[in-house]
This record gives sequence, C-alpha cells and structure tokens, in this order.
Amino acid sequence: MRRDVRAQLDSTEQPPAHGLEREEHRAQVLDQLKELARTGRPHLGFPVEYGGKGDIGGSIVSFEMIALGDLSVMVKAGVQWGLFGGAVELLGTQRHHERYLRAIMDLDLPGCFAMTEYGHGSDVQNLKTTATYDPATQEFVVHTPDTSARKEYIGNAARDGRMAAVFAQLVTGGESRGVHAFLVPIRNDDGTPMPGVTIEDCGHKAGLNGVDNGRLTFDEVRIPRTALLNRYGDVAEDGTYSSPIESDGRRFFTMLGTLVRGRVSVAGSAGSATKRALTIAVRYGDRRTQFERPGTDDEVAILDYLGHQRKLLPALATTYALHFAQEELVTALDELQHIDEPDERMRREFESHAAGVKAVATWHATSTIQAAREACGGAGYLAENILPQLKADTDVFTTFEGDNTVLLQLVAKGMLTSYKQEVQDLRPLETARFVAEQVFERVIERTAARKVIERIMDAGPRRDEEDSLYDRAWQVRMFEDREEHVLDSLVQRLRRAGNDGVDAFDVFNNAQDHVLRAGRVHVDRVVLEGFVGAIDGCTDPDTKALLEQLCDLYALANIEADRAWFLEHGRLTSQRSKAVVAAVNELCRELRPRARELVDAFAIPEQFLQAPIIAD
Amino acid sequence: MRRDVRAQLDSTEQPPAHGLEREEHRAQVLDQLKELARTGRPHLGFPVEYGGKGDIGGSIVSFEMIALGDLSVMVKAGVQWGLFGGAVELLGTQRHHERYLRAIMDLDLPGCFAMTEYGHGSDVQNLKTTATYDPATQEFVVHTPDTSARKEYIGNAARDGRMAAVFAQLVTGGESRGVHAFLVPIRNDDGTPMPGVTIEDCGHKAGLNGVDNGRLTFDEVRIPRTALLNRYGDVAEDGTYSSPIESDGRRFFTMLGTLVRGRVSVAGSAGSATKRALTIAVRYGDRRTQFERPGTDDEVAILDYLGHQRKLLPALATTYALHFAQEELVTALDELQHIDEPDERMRREFESHAAGVKAVATWHATSTIQAAREACGGAGYLAENILPQLKADTDVFTTFEGDNTVLLQLVAKGMLTSYKQEVQDLRPLETARFVAEQVFERVIERTAARKVIERIMDAGPRRDEEDSLYDRAWQVRMFEDREEHVLDSLVQRLRRAGNDGVDAFDVFNNAQDHVLRAGRVHVDRVVLEGFVGAIDGCTDPDTKALLEQLCDLYALANIEADRAWFLEHGRLTSQRSKAVVAAVNELCRELRPRARELVDAFAIPEQFLQAPIIAD
Repeated sequence: MRRDVRAQLDSTEQPPAHGLEREEHRAQVLDQLKELARTGRPHLGFPVEYGGKGDIGGSIVSFEMIALGDLSVMVKAGVQWGLFGGAVELLGTQRHHERYLRAIMDLDLPGCFAMTEYGHGSDVQNLKTTATYDPATQEFVVHTPDTSARKEYIGNAARDGRMAAVFAQLVTGGESRGVHAFLVPIRNDDGTPMPGVTIEDCGHKAGLNGVDNGRLTFDEVRIPRTALLNRYGDVAEDGTYSSPIESDGRRFFTMLGTLVRGRVSVAGSAGSATKRALTIAVRYGDRRTQFERPGTDDEVAILDYLGHQRKLLPALATTYALHFAQEELVTALDELQHIDEPDERMRREFESHAAGVKAVATWHATSTIQAAREACGGAGYLAENILPQLKADTDVFTTFEGDNTVLLQLVAKGMLTSYKQEVQDLRPLETARFVAEQVFERVIERTAARKVIERIMDAGPRRDEEDSLYDRAWQVRMFEDREEHVLDSLVQRLRRAGNDGVDAFDVFNNAQDHVLRAGRVHVDRVVLEGFVGAIDGCTDPDTKALLEQLCDLYALANIEADRAWFLEHGRLTSQRSKAVVAAVNELCRELRPRARELVDAFAIPEQFLQAPIIAD
Repeated sequence: MRRDVRAQLDSTEQPPAHGLEREEHRAQVLDQLKELARTGRPHLGFPVEYGGKGDIGGSIVSFEMIALGDLSVMVKAGVQWGLFGGAVELLGTQRHHERYLRAIMDLDLPGCFAMTEYGHGSDVQNLKTTATYDPATQEFVVHTPDTSARKEYIGNAARDGRMAAVFAQLVTGGESRGVHAFLVPIRNDDGTPMPGVTIEDCGHKAGLNGVDNGRLTFDEVRIPRTALLNRYGDVAEDGTYSSPIESDGRRFFTMLGTLVRGRVSVAGSAGSATKRALTIAVRYGDRRTQFERPGTDDEVAILDYLGHQRKLLPALATTYALHFAQEELVTALDELQHIDEPDERMRREFESHAAGVKAVATWHATSTIQAAREACGGAGYLAENILPQLKADTDVFTTFEGDNTVLLQLVAKGMLTSYKQEVQDLRPLETARFVAEQVFERVIERTAARKVIERIMDAGPRRDEEDSLYDRAWQVRMFEDREEHVLDSLVQRLRRAGNDGVDAFDVFNNAQDHVLRAGRVHVDRVVLEGFVGAIDGCTDPDTKALLEQLCDLYALANIEADRAWFLEHGRLTSQRSKAVVAAVNELCRELRPRARELVDAFAIPEQFLQAPIIAD
C-alpha cells in the first residue's frame, strides 16, 4: 500500500501549501481531494457491496501516506471519507448505504461531521442540539437552542459541504433518548445554505487553512424520519423508540466506539508529519556546520554536538517505536472487522490502545516538530523549509479526535475498570480494600507481542540479578513494573481518600495527575512491546541490530525522562540512574552515524522534501 | 513608563495582525512604526545630545510594552532602534552620531542589522563577508565571496531598509583584523537597490510576517573609509589599523557585548507574549465548563481540574519569577550605563545574566504559549483567539539574538572562567586538580538580592535540621547547592577526561549535556533570588503573601521537574521527593481561586485581549 501511494504521489504534482491565501488554499485542497477520489483509494475502507474494497487497514495506511503531503488534504479527506462516510456506514443502515455511500466515495456528496458544539467538545454526551420527532409529519426537527449548542470547528462546512451528520439529543414522545446522528442537508445545489441553516466561517486558523471549518446553527430544520442513522436506535412512524442496546450509556459508547478509526488515522498522520520534520532536521544537522573544531580548520557538523543529538535522536527512536505501535493498531483494527462478534473486552482494549497511542503520538509530534524547527535555527522559521507549516498544521492534533488529556484519562479509567473486573466486579471501595489486603502479582494485559515478550523475559536475568541496562528483559520489566505500581498505588490512593469521606469528584480530581500518569505509563509499555515485536519479525540481521539499538535508545530515554519516579520507588539506585543518563549519551553517539540512514528509511517522497536548506 | 505606554496604546487603535496578507501586514507594521516614532519613545534609549533621553531602562521597558501587541511591531522596532540604532550609537563615533542618530530615531533612515550569514549564524567570529580597505580611493570594498556569506534573515531588508550596519572581516594591508561593522547604503531614495547590492525576500515565515526579512549580497560595493563604525577599531587614510583594544578576541567580544540590549529586550518581549497567552488561557479556564460534577447538574470549570491547573499555574508562577528577573536585569543594564568604567567582571556577569535569562525566558514562552493553546482546545486554534499568532510569532525567539543552546553554553563557560579565576588563574587542568584536592565552600556569585537572601539564610533552619518545603531558606539552599555541585562535578569530569588523553573538543562535547545543565541551574538560581528580592520590596501585606505563595510554587515546581537530580545526589529522600509533588498539587489548588487576579495584575490592555472566547 505504501509503495502504491508513493508511486501515485510521484506521478502527480503535489503543490505546496505555504504562501497561499486561504481561499486559494481551500480551492487547491478541494482539487486534490477530487484527484484523490479518482485514484479509488478513498473507496478502500468501504464495503464491497457499494463499490468499496473492505480494506480498513489499507484505508488507514493510505491516510497516513496522504499525511506526508499537505496536511489540509489529509484532514479534509478524513472529514469526508473517515468521519462523514464512516458515520453513514457505521451508524447508518442499508437505506443510507444504498443512497449515499457511492456519492460519498466519489466526492459527489461532500459532507460534514457535526458533533462538537461551542459549549461541548469533550463532553459529547451532553450536547445540546435537539432532534425532536414530530409524528404528525414523520419528521425530526433539528434545533440549536442557544449559542453554546452551535456546531463548531466543523470541517467542510464553511465552503464545500452539502450534508452533515449532525449529532443531537433524540427526543420522542417527550423523552430524551440520548445522542444520535442525523443526516441533515445544509446546502442547496447552488451552494446557498438550506432554509433554517446558518453557516459561518471559522476564519483563519493556526494551520490547516486548506480546510474550510465552519459553524452550523439549525433553526427548527425539518428532516424525514429516515434521516436518522438508525443502526443503534430507531424511531417508528408513531414515535416509538427502539434500540438493540438497552442501556443509554452503553449505546452511546458503542456508537462512539465505531468512530475509533479517526483516532487511528490521526495517530498515523501525526507519525507521518513527525517523520517528515525529522528527515529535514537530521539531513540539515548532518550537513550544516558551525564553529571550528579546535586546532583544525574544519567546522563541526551540528549533529556531531551531543546537545544536538539529544534534541533529535531520542525523538527519532520514539518515532520508530510509535511507528510500530501504529502498525499493531492498524492490524488490530483490520482484524476486528473480520471477527463477527468481537468480545466486549477485546473491543474495549482496542479502543483504549487507540486513544492512548493517539494521545502519545500527537504530543510526540508537537514536541518533535518544535525541536526540529529549533534544530534548524532561523532557516527552520522560513516557510520554504516546510517546518513552519508542519508545526502549525499538526498543532491541533492534540485536541481534535479527542483532547489528549481526556483520552489519557479514558485509558486510565479503562485500566481501573479491568482492575475491578479482575477482582470479581467488586464496587470501587471493596476493590480497593481487596487490593490492600492481598499480595498478588497482577497479570497485566498483553499486546500482540506477548509471546516474544515472554520468551525474552524467560531468557532475561532474574529480578534479583545485576542487570545490564541494555538487557531487553530488564527494560520491559521496568516498564511493566512501573505500570503495575502506578495503577496499584492509584487504587490505594483513591480508596484512602474515599474512606476519609472526601467527595467523589474531589477524590478523583485530587489524584488527576496520578490518573493521567497511569494512562501514560500504560501506553509507554504497549509501545515498547510493539517495538520488541517488530524487531522479532525483522529478518535482515543488520537492520535488526540497528533496530535493537534504536529500541535501547527509546527504552532508556523513556526511563531517563522518568527516572525521578524510578528513584522514588526504589527501582533505580542513584548510581544506576546516572548510568541510564550516560547510556543515552552513548547511544546518541553510536547512532549518530546512522541517523541519515534512519530517516531515509522513512522513504518520504522527495517532492515533500523540497526545502532549500537540504537541497543539494 | 508602563502606565504611559498603556495610556498611549489605549488612545490609538492597534489593529490585529491575523488574516492579513503579507504585504498588507508589512505596510500596517511600517505605519505603526511611524506612529511609534511620533510618540518619541524610540528616542528614550539614545543620548541626550542627539535628541534622545538617555533612559536605557525606560527604552527596554517600552519595548516590553510594545510586545503586548503585534509582535511584528516590536521586532521591526527592535531592528530599527535597538539593533541598527544601537550599532550606530555603540560601535560608531561622533561623526556617525551627528550624521545619523536623529534620522534613525525619527525613522527617516530605516536601517538593517546585517550580521547573520547563511553559513554563519552563531559563529559570528567566522563571518565570511569582507570589507577590504583600498588606500588608493580611501574606500572599503564590501564583498560577499560566496552564497554561504550572504546576509540572511535581515529584518527591514526586503522592503524598507535604506542602510545596513554590515558586519564583515576588516582587511587592510593584506591583513585581516577581525569582524567590524560598516554602514552600507542598500537602497536609493526611490527604493531600488544600490549598485552592487542584491536584495532578496525571505518570503513567508512561520510568524512575524509584518517584518520584511531579506537577504543581502554585496558585489564589490565601495563605501567611504568613514563608513567604518570605528569606536573599537579604525583605519587611517594610509590603511594603518588601530584599536583601543589590543587583543582581537577581546575587541570582538567587547563589540558584541555592547549589543546585549537586544537580548534583554527579547527576554522582556517574550515575557509580554507569555503574559498575554496566560491571561487568555486563565480567563478561559475560569469560565469554560466541561463535564458535570457527579451528583449535581453543575458543570465543572476546567481550571478546577488539577490537570488543567498543572498546565497553567506553575507556568504562571514562573512567568512572575521571570518578570522579576527581567526587572533586575533592566535595572542592572540601566545602572551600568551610569558607571563610567564598569569593571570587566561586573560587565561580564551582566552579559551572562542577560544571555541566560533570554534563553530561559524564551523557552518558557514557547512552552507556555503552547500549553495555553492546548488549554483552550479547538478555540485556541482559531486566529480570532490570538494564541496562534502568539505561538507563531514567538517561536523564533529561542533562535534569534543568540540561539538558546549557544547562550546557555556561554553562561556555563562564563561560570567555568570565574571558577578558574577564583582559584588564581590556574590553567584548566591545574584548576581541576586544585579543586579535586581541596574541600572548600565556594562563594557563589550573588545577585542584587544578596542581602535579602543572606538575611533569609541566616534566619532559616540549618542544613542538618528537618526543613519545611515551604521554607524559603531551604529552597534557596537547594538551588544554590545544585548549582555548586553541578559546576564542581563538571570541572572534575572535564579534568578526568582531559587526563585520559581525550581530544579537547571531545572532552567538552561528551559533557555538553552537563555544560548546558550548569548554565541552566545557574539561571534558575538567579531567577529565584530575583523573585525573593522582589517580595522583600513589596509593601502591601496581602500582595506580599500572595507572592510568597507564588514563589513557593515556582521554587517547588522547579525542584519537582528536576527531582531526579536531587534524588540522585542525595539532596532529597524518596519520601521528601514525593512530598514536593504533593506540595505542587496543593499550591495549585490554593492558588486556583487567585488565578484570575494574578493574570489581571499583568494589566494587559483590553484591546489586546479581544478574543471571542473570553469576551463577555
């Protein structure tokens, strides 16, 4: 798939985005979307019966590849085919599929995904837009009760969208049934807004200005009953509500869960942008010299400075780690589609990984692209050298498709829930008491690489032996041990606070840093295991050896950054902690001569690397 | 001064910069500069005999205030009056002052500061542009030998500049005399480039697009002998070179040292932008609610979440700390002007503080504005809410006026030099041996707050007592102790490596992380002392109590972020280290109700806070 996309990209000109005015940029991006529709790749993720190819994995990888170019194209494609198309496919039923999927795939029906409101972004469950069923006319009345309910930041809305999947509280028979999605036409064929629909332009943004984000307000807009995307909840002609899922909460989370592909795509796209930024910064650092080497007339390449290596090489190792975690995620998503009835636990675990990897990968993109810009000095500030656009475009990745902080909290809550289930569904307080009274080795949930990990752990030194920092079993144990301990101590902390009679909200909020940390160290462990699994699958001995070194750098730089915790909890002695810092320096030195090779391996098409600072 | 500028700002409309096209933006900024010239404030920093006011401190504070608005205005003003005007004043002599200073102040002569070259930014000493004296015509021939010598990123060059202070290697009698500055006309009155001068436009940048950065290439451009800014080096009619400073190296650093005002201004401007971003984020966090408080219908203000407090409040405390450090810096700069012959050590110490505070303040701006953007979610990504412009504009602050990494290294090298001098000017190797053989309490260099600090230290608990985390003496001792130990261990490390016969460059480079750290912890200590001094000078008891709390948060958050080091070096036990984390959480909770008050105290004019997300 990657090779295919590269070949297609090579054969079409990909105009740069910088320096364009907003409307020019929007027009250019729409043209690129049309071109993309012609390649048939947007069809990949859709069902075969409607002209799609049923290849979810391929579809995500294709998004990841598009993200090597202008990110506005990726985001607008994501809105059209991922979010809007995804909502129609996954929340709708045959009648919607037959009527719309082809037009969506072919971009004949440009659409929006109207979930976020001005007043409610992360808290989707409390959206204020209503869709009230009127049995007299068999219509839903979609309405924006106040400004806080205005649909906000909606991609494709300001210029091109004809229809929107609008998320609203379904009301029938005077009763609210929770959030559902409805297909609402927003523009006539001539581009003017439909009656009752007000469309505003969000105007200039930090980046992604090729995407026409807008605001939608609905004033008693009537749509037919059949416009409800009714896979998880339907309203009969007489207004009777029915759903295959009884619990409102479970239905809501099931509906939301189907939209997980977007998160996986964003994580992959963040990876692409990070790789592109690192390729530029490493190539520049490799050739740019500054200051003479004392006693010689030679100037030193800036990547030869330890400080510069430290800015880029651990980030490069982490980018590889996240690449493999992403591969695992895409594989899991693809496999899930082929299981008729994936069990609840498997699905939840996958959603948690997707949320966690999205958060970690997008924060990594933000900090790495920032570091790459700084590593290229003044040249990195010029638009012609690509980094400014990458920084500006990716900046919102930490916010959209789920705010990262909220996502990490989600991961942690998932961990607490599995924890609870393991101890036989006790209530929180009882759980905590149980935990406090027992001494037990919790079996932590394993990734796809579990067998490889087990083999390594069995071969590795025992817990009481003197371990080498470069021993993979030791590294994995450090990550596992941290995860277990952070989670266990969180449970105990929540219990203590609960016993002290502190209000439930305060209990949780006072420990929020601990909660977020639990999510974070969980993801870190999952990412390390993905890396280990990928190395195991690598058959070329030289590549394998290089990846082993890179994995050491990932693991040790992660431990280094968090060594306060390891010291506080007696997992590292002072001496060993200092040895970790020294090992990271040593790995930077050792990997420096391979840096160029490591970024070249990302195989970014040269047309996306046309920056004067790295031109020959 | 701040009140004056606020009043003037209130009386003139300050148009926003976002959404403008580049040329519109440049024209607007030039108009704003002309308006600024009319206020007479740019005259502040210039000598009274040429129509200035001789008020350096006021001049810097005025830059800091301009930086509350469009940062392109601040940067272009900085180029014109700080860099170009400063070079003419400080490197030139009476003939230049009489001829140019008034025109510069009044903006009748827009100028550039042409130091950086494409191939040499940080390494100014090795610039490649030459100015060769031709005694036959009594002219200098200014020449760009190759592309790497092209003057790059030069503000005011692409559109408005008429003259440039060009830094070039002075060659006379076939001998190079090192870098000097020359006044070179670059444009005719009609705006066309002068013969032999090629001007290119740097084009679009990440931010600051109201500043016309350009590239200058000189093809054997002839200028009169008197165009040399000859305060520190002159060429007689016959080509004889003379200088009041014999050593080429010392002359170079003296010349560069005069330009320190730019760094001080950038640090102040970074502070202004940070304050503006925090004001927006805190006001938003105070009113924006998300998710219901369990068991109630009330939604929680996002600033009530611990995670959100942790994003913003320690950054707010650090912003206050840097504000006071900046005040101290400006006062010192102002005082230095009034000392006829400041001693070398005093001057060097000031330059080191300026470099260090610039580095720390601009990195702080980058990370805090990033955090503020994320803390405002999708709204923070919209240009109308100001944060995108702040992020993009300030991003290059870490690079210009000295790359931060290079500056921190400079600070550290200065520390090593004073270290050496203290032990009687031994050579490095001998110094290190001396250090290793002695047990001594090094007296660390004190800031202006020294008396206050001594009083606090005398009153505080002894080293062996159980100290409260909130005890200022304990906090100061932690900072001091860290600085001393990092420096001592650096010296020993360099010595060991030197003894092992490692090449001099490698010795230093292998320890570069340690070197940078030495610079950093030095600045942190200076900043803490500035904060302590400011509290001591505060007469209002309520304000004082609030500042004490804020200072606790600054000190403890700093220790928290670096607690790995304190643990590794036996300065914190595990238990106490965890207590530091808990104390930061506790301070966040305690200061949260004062957050709005703390940002309001920055007194940002409301016209610079016209963001819809915080509008009433």
